[in-house]
Order: sequence, then structure tokens, then C-alpha cells
Amino acid sequence: MKLSAIKNIISDIVIVRDAEFYELGLTATQCSVSMLSFLENTKYIDELLSNATISCAIVNPETAEMIKDRTTIGIAVSESPKHSFFFLHNYLIENTDFYGQSDGSIIDPSADINSTAWISKTGVSIGAGTIIGPHVSIYPNVRIGNNVTIGANSIIGGEGFECFRFQDKAFMVKHAGNVLIGDNVDIQASCCIDKGLFKNSTIIGEYTKLDNLVHIAHNVILGRRVFIAACAMLAGRVTVGDDAWIGPSAALRNGITVGNNGYVSIGAVVTRDVLEGQMVSGNFAIGHDKFLQFIKSIR
Amino acid sequence: MKLSAIKNIISDIVIVRDAEFYELGLTATQCSVSMLSFLENTKYIDELLSNATISCAIVNPETAEMIKDRTTIGIAVSESPKHSFFFLHNYLIENTDFYGQSDGSIIDPSADINSTAWISKTGVSIGAGTIIGPHVSIYPNVRIGNNVTIGANSIIGGEGFECFRFQDKAFMVKHAGNVLIGDNVDIQASCCIDKGLFKNSTIIGEYTKLDNLVHIAHNVILGRRVFIAACAMLAGRVTVGDDAWIGPSAALRNGITVGNNGYVSIGAVVTRDVLEGQMVSGNFAIGHDKFLQFIKSIR
Amino acid sequence: MKLSAIKNIISDIVIVRDAEFYELGLTATQCSVSMLSFLENTKYIDELLSNATISCAIVNPETAEMIKDRTTIGIAVSESPKHSFFFLHNYLIENTDFYGQSDGSIIDPSADINSTAWISKTGVSIGAGTIIGPHVSIYPNVRIGNNVTIGANSIIGGEGFECFRFQDKAFMVKHAGNVLIGDNVDIQASCCIDKGLFKNSTIIGEYTKLDNLVHIAHNVILGRRVFIAACAMLAGRVTVGDDAWIGPSAALRNGITVGNNGYVSIGAVVTRDVLEGQMVSGNFAIGHDKFLQFIKSIR
Repeated sequence: MKLSAIKNIISDIVIVRDAEFYELGLTATQCSVSMLSFLENTKYIDELLSNATISCAIVNPETAEMIKDRTTIGIAVSESPKHSFFFLHNYLIENTDFYGQSDGSIIDPSADINSTAWISKTGVSIGAGTIIGPHVSIYPNVRIGNNVTIGANSIIGGEGFECFRFQDKAFMVKHAGNVLIGDNVDIQASCCIDKGLFKNSTIIGEYTKLDNLVHIAHNVILGRRVFIAACAMLAGRVTVGDDAWIGPSAALRNGITVGNNGYVSIGAVVTRDVLEGQMVSGNFAIGHDKFLQFIKSIR
Repeated sequence: MKLSAIKNIISDIVIVRDAEFYELGLTATQCSVSMLSFLENTKYIDELLSNATISCAIVNPETAEMIKDRTTIGIAVSESPKHSFFFLHNYLIENTDFYGQSDGSIIDPSADINSTAWISKTGVSIGAGTIIGPHVSIYPNVRIGNNVTIGANSIIGGEGFECFRFQDKAFMVKHAGNVLIGDNVDIQASCCIDKGLFKNSTIIGEYTKLDNLVHIAHNVILGRRVFIAACAMLAGRVTVGDDAWIGPSAALRNGITVGNNGYVSIGAVVTRDVLEGQMVSGNFAIGHDKFLQFIKSIR
Repeated sequence: MKLSAIKNIISDIVIVRDAEFYELGLTATQCSVSMLSFLENTKYIDELLSNATISCAIVNPETAEMIKDRTTIGIAVSESPKHSFFFLHNYLIENTDFYGQSDGSIIDPSADINSTAWISKTGVSIGAGTIIGPHVSIYPNVRIGNNVTIGANSIIGGEGFECFRFQDKAFMVKHAGNVLIGDNVDIQASCCIDKGLFKNSTIIGEYTKLDNLVHIAHNVILGRRVFIAACAMLAGRVTVGDDAWIGPSAALRNGITVGNNGYVSIGAVVTRDVLEGQMVSGNFAIGHDKFLQFIKSIR
């Protein structure tokens, strides 16, 4: 799609330099093809300039001036880049095929679907031997592998939580991505697994197991054999390596990474990356040994 | 209603001074009309005496003696005021029109109601363009505005959590209030929004957005454009100002206030008011700057 | 059942000394009859030897050598005892009557079952005057008493979270136990109450009250008149005494005990036993007085 073509959708932008893009994404998003992004605040200009997959950007006049010599980036100027960007994104989802079209849902005949489950008639595929429990809700853009179980009242493929204020209103950003659940995954009751925001995915790796009431936000990527205990909360874009343990009631801030075999203690509020094999505890979480030392000092 | 009339409902009370009341409420409740309250423990007598909307009170003999000269308050004496009060409250809900009657539910023809949603046949109104997802449960006494979305498996208008022990038993207090959801509110999946306890409301202001698995207790009042992230817990009577951010897995103690633009960090356990524009973090939460200083000292 | 008989189910074990067992259990499980257990790690051999109800054990060669003179324990040797044990357990559930058979479900005619609730056709009993809300899911092996209420979208009798890795895979352990809910219990919306792991129970004592979004793991035992506020998480085998208060968003580590009248503060992450009448706060939780002293020092 040409940057100049979005002028037909958002009238109050000015095209400074035209270019092509194939996807939309945040400046923090890594994409396999050229993408359109935006910058609301000039302060984060380095994030924009260091992301080589960005071929087009919606920016404010000040930023436009600063990047005018960067000829690899097409530029559209808006007084409110974030609003323009997400308005375009929502428009493309609702009115165009930019994000693709959903086919009819495909459920393997050997899958066991509870009669009270609700499964979208389009955009869902469910593999062989998979069991879908009572009152499960499965939205479009969900691909579930073989021998998976989804426990009662869980919701797969719901909208993620991306919202922004504009003037005296506030808006939700629609989600165009999907959820990919690998073979032999088990998800217990009342979990929520949201879909990806752009042309990307929330991924649950093979053999990974989730307890009850777990929240998996948009674009989380879980490795293989990850165990996530009850009431844990994984915010957007969290990445968890193979064989990690996420304790019950833990909360992981958006964007962080937990390495292979990482161990997050019960109730830990994790705001920094967890290294391979590292154990962290506390609110905010720190290395477990230092944490125990601290607790002993006040106990 | 006359205080003396409750003698017919609770036989083991003594009317010391008669008076009129129109609602029931806790001593902490502010009411627009004269109300009946109770005091279990004489220690909190100031809360009773400083609430000008209280026209009647059920109290123990000791308290009755102390307030006998306060002629603006009708007095009923009970050996267990809390039990008498809530017994009366439950009786009025179940057997009288004191708390009003529910009309048939009204759903705007342009609303999109998933076929698996359960909506009470009485006491619900749903506005134009509103979308109700799969497996949603909506109890009586719920008013939902226009262009609202309620995500899968959310529960609106459930009973709040007010319970008390009496002798070797324990009882739930029934809820007579309602839930008011403003226009353009978005509520994601598996949220619980409880109704008000008395003739009052749990209120979600216009354009406010809730992520998955959020708990909103009875009589919470949310302003406009409030964003509440996944797994957050707002206990009874919490008030949140416009444009505030409640982080994921945060827990807010009952009765506290978060000012406009207040910012509650991920996992914060908030036990004191949050000022306008203030950021708080930790368990229990403190000002964010002091909190970071502390974390650095133990990291 | 004879230990030697399991050789037909798990071929790669060696029976060193035969003996009889009637149930399966962890080394930490107390059982009323002779049981089969396992030991993965020789380090915990004392837990095995001090549990008098263990009549048979699956152990590795090293442990077998160490307990060969303990003639009261039958011994089966496996290179991966945990895997062998749970493979046997899953096999017994799926292919034999070892764990008993479910009868048809029995619902008292005076119970009020919402038309959208899903109740297993076998293994459920529901008492007189009990109310089951919309979108509730009740799995087999659940016994609900009289005058109980189960709120919307709650799940009773779901599988607990017991899983283990083996080679490059991971497995869930099936649950053979049940859930027992006493008379006059109230459970609000979106709660999860998992069944016991072996021939044992998750128990909710009479008059106990649960708020929304509470997680009760396998083999939790709650006393009478316990109040558990919203979003609390009780991990496996937690025991809570009569009249205790578990605050909102609290998290209790597996195996701990809260004494009668114990008080767990909002957001507390409890990793040690709470004494009778004790109040604990913080992450990890400590005595409330010491905790307040600490908070004052950093506020």
C-alpha cells in the first residue's frame, strides 16, 4: 500500500514523502516486511530510526523536520500521529482486506466440542483430538493444534487491551492478529488469551500448560513446556522461554522476557527481564537470594 | 417508613424513639434522603453522629444511652445491631417494594446480543449499538448505555460481597442497588461488576475501558476515560477519577479514592488515597519515587 | 492392588519387593489406608520414610538400595519414578475402576438451576434449595450441599494443575478426587474450585463465602464461616481454619495452613503458616505489626 493512499482515509494528514508499506506496527515491533509506524513523542525518535523494518511513519511536524533527510522513510505529517495511525488501523480492519479475510472455521471431526461452547463460524481451526470445554468462547483468528484441551469458560482470541484517549473521548484499537496454540497444550478454566494487535500472533508453544484464571495479553509468546500457575498475568508482548515456571498470581510487565528455565515466584511483580535459569521474587521482583535476604531483615 | 414499623419484622428490638427513614445505609454512606443505619461497636460513634443523613439507627443498649439526647436520630435498640439491620435489609428486598420493583428488560433493537448470553428478563436496559459477547451474564438492575461492548463471559450486576457471622452461622447481605454503565464503555472478557448494596449504584463512566478478568466491587465509581488493565481488583466503594490508569494485577482497598490522572503501577496494593496525577507502586503502595529508591536499595 | 500388578501397566519397572496398596498419594499425603507413593529425588527420603501410610513406593535404583531393609515398604524401581507413578495414575483413571465409578447426577427438585448452566450427567449431586447461576460449569465428582449458591460463570470440579516434564514433552496429571461443598456456602461469580488429585477431596466448609474470581486449587480444605475476598488465590493443599479472612488479591502458597480467625491482608503473598488469630501482610507476608513498621520506614 502506498502511504499517499491513506490520505483518502485520514484527510487531515500531509504526505511529505511517499513510500510503500505492507504492514502496520509499533516502533518496538519487528516485522518481516516494510511497515508503517508512528511517533507521538519526538523524545523516542531513536526507536523509530533504529527499526530498519519501518518504511513509512506518521509523525508530528517537529519530528518530520528532524527525519526529512532519512530518505528510506516515507513521511506523513499529522498533529496527532497516534490517533491518525490507529484510526487508519481500525479503518483497514473494518473496511478493507488489508489484514486478510477469514475463511469458514474448520473443526477436526475427532475434536470433542462441548455443546455449550461458542465458536466463531469463521477464522477458527481446531485440530484432532482437541477437547473444548463448556462455556468456552473462541473468537475468529484462532488456530488450535492437536490434542489440546481448553477448560471451561476460557476465552481464546479476545480483543487485546490497546486504548488511547483523544480529546474528551477514548478508543479501543481493534485487533487484526491471531492466536496460535501448539499441539498438546493444556489450558484450564477461565483463562483469557488475546489475539495479536497487527499482522502478528499470540503464541502458546507445544506442551505448555496454563492453570485457571490466567491472562495472556496480545502478542505474548510462550515457549515449549512452560508452566503458568493460577491467576498469573502476562502483559502485552511478554516472551517466555522453554521450561519456565510462572508462579501463581505473578504479574509480568509488558515487553519483558523470561529466559529458558526462568522461575518467577508466587506473587512476583516482574518489571525486568528474567535471565535463563534465574529465580525472581517480590514486588517489584529481584533476584531470589537478595529478596530472601531482604525479607529476613524485616521479618 | 417509620422506625416503629420494623418492630413487625425484627421482634427482638426495642423502639426508644420513633422517626422516619427512606433508605438504608452504612454510617459511611452518604445519602440524599433520610436513612436508617446501625452501629455495632460504640467505638465508631463519631461516624454515626457526624453523618447528617442518618435519621434512624439500630444500636446496642450502651450506644442508645450515649445518643439519647440526640433528638434528630430515631433509636431502635438491639443486642446485635448489625444482624438486625441486615436481617431487615434482606427482608425488605425479598418481601416488600421498599427497594422498588423491576420492570421488564429493554434491549435496543440495534444492540447485538450473542445467542449464548444470559440476560435477566427484568431490570435490564441495553442501549443502541451495544454489543454483548458470548456467555455474558447480566443480572437485574443493570443499565447499559449506547455503543458499549461487554466481552465474553463477563458478569454484570452480580451480588456484591457483604457477609457477616452471627452465632455459628454466616450470611450474605442481598444487594438492592444497580450498575450504571455509561456510553462508549468497553469491558473485555471475564470481568465481574457487582451491583450497589443499598439504593445506590456501581458506576462506570463514559469511555472507560476495562481489560480482562477485572473485578469491580459494589458501589465502585469510575470516572470517564479510566483505563483498568487485566486482573485488577477494585474493592467496595473505591472511587477513581477521570483519565486514571489502574495497572494490571493492582489491588485497591475498599473506600479509597484515586484522583484524576492518578497512576497505579502494575501489582500495586493500594491502601491509601492516590492524589490527582500521583503515581504509586508497591505492596503496600507508596509514592513511585520513594518506591524506586527503596527497590534500588535492595536490588 | 498388588505392586507386582502394575508391572502389566508400566513395563520398564522392576519389582524388588511386593506389597499391597489401596490408594495413590504424594509422600506429603496423609491417607487412611495403605498407599503407593514415589520418590523422584533421594534428597527427600525422610519424607518417604516418615509417612507411615506408605506401603509401596516407586523409586530410583539409588533410593531402592537405601530402603531395601525397610521391609514394611514394597519397592518398584524405575529410572524415572515420577513419570512411572503418574503414568500409572492416569492409566488407572482412564482404564480401570480403581478410583471408583460415577453414578448418574442427582439434583434435588427444589434446586434452582439456570437454564444455561452445564452440569455433568454423572457424578454430581446438588442439594435442596441450592441455586446454580448462569453459565456455571460443574464437572463430575462434585457434591454440593443444601442452600448453596454458585454464581455466574463459576467452575466447580475442574482439573487441578499438576503437570510434569518428561524428555521433551510435558503432561497433565488427571484428577481422581472430588469437591465437597457444605450447606449454606455462597460462591460468587467466576470462581474456580478444582477437584482432589487422588482419592481425596477439595472441601468448602459450611457457611463459607467466596467473592468473585477466587481460585481454589486441588485439595484445599476450608473451614466453616471462612470469608475469601475477590481475586484471592489458594494453591494446592492449603488449609484454612474457621472464621478466617482471606483478603482480596491475596495469594497463598501450596501446603500452608491458616489458623482459625487468621487474617490475610489485601494482596498478601503468604508463604508460611498463619497462626490462629494472626494477621499477616506484604509480599512475602510477615506479621502485620512488623510489616507496618517496615512500610513506615520507606514511606
